[in-house]
Amino acid sequence: MHEPHLDHIALVVADLERSAALYASLGFEQRYRETVADQGVEIVGMRAGDSTIELLRPLSADSPLVRFLGDKESRLHHIAYRVADIDAELSRLRSHGVRLIDERPRRGAHGNLIAFIHPSATGDALIEICQPPTPAA
Amino acid sequence: MHEPHLDHIALVVADLERSAALYASLGFEQRYRETVADQGVEIVGMRAGDSTIELLRPLSADSPLVRFLGDKESRLHHIAYRVADIDAELSRLRSHGVRLIDERPRRGAHGNLIAFIHPSATGDALIEICQPPTPAA
Repeated sequence: MHEPHLDHIALVVADLERSAALYASLGFEQRYRETVADQGVEIVGMRAGDSTIELLRPLSADSPLVRFLGDKESRLHHIAYRVADIDAELSRLRSHGVRLIDERPRRGAHGNLIAFIHPSATGDALIEICQPPTPAA
Repeated sequence: MHEPHLDHIALVVADLERSAALYASLGFEQRYRETVADQGVEIVGMRAGDSTIELLRPLSADSPLVRFLGDKESRLHHIAYRVADIDAELSRLRSHGVRLIDERPRRGAHGNLIAFIHPSATGDALIEICQPPTPAA
């Protein structure tokens, strides 16, 4: 059995700059800032040891993430764990009857391959699996 | 500046056994199970690399955590980062004018010293600071 690692937790936030400044004031360093047009978000990743706190800003006012956030300042959107082989992990989950949103991995931020488990399988916590890109040989 | 480490994230859950089984099925191993009477919760900690996913079950039906959870299966309660010297960290935050719930550290699960930052300082995300116990010499 693999030992899963907490890759990142992602929070939707109402004010990206304010939230980034908050985590910076707690000592977390900014690791990346990136727009993922595909997912309609701007992401700031704050390094937290070997994990990352990701802050998500919806790019449009009619994003489902805006409704998801409601009148909160921040809301947990998903938890992501990292595996070395995402195809093997998806097969393993499938063989256990776990319902998936993404039957095949797709491209996430900074070259990761990602897939989401269906919330009906997880009691409504949204869980992502991610496989970091292989460093160039 | 210290490098903060993501110690754990804590989710209030509606069904502790179901949630623990879910994370186990994803490959996370149970690290501890503990009742913290002080905080009115039973906690299961699932190891996620060098971090932990903590699942919290309120011990009584009139716990504020029950209202907090509402009709959800799980809801993020707090994010905790680990420091070597919690008194120094609290002083540092105080000197930056950060409002605290706990002016002094108190005892948390398994011997940790913990303190919460006031949510008004963090835009409503509840953030805990924790200092693990010093190993016996």
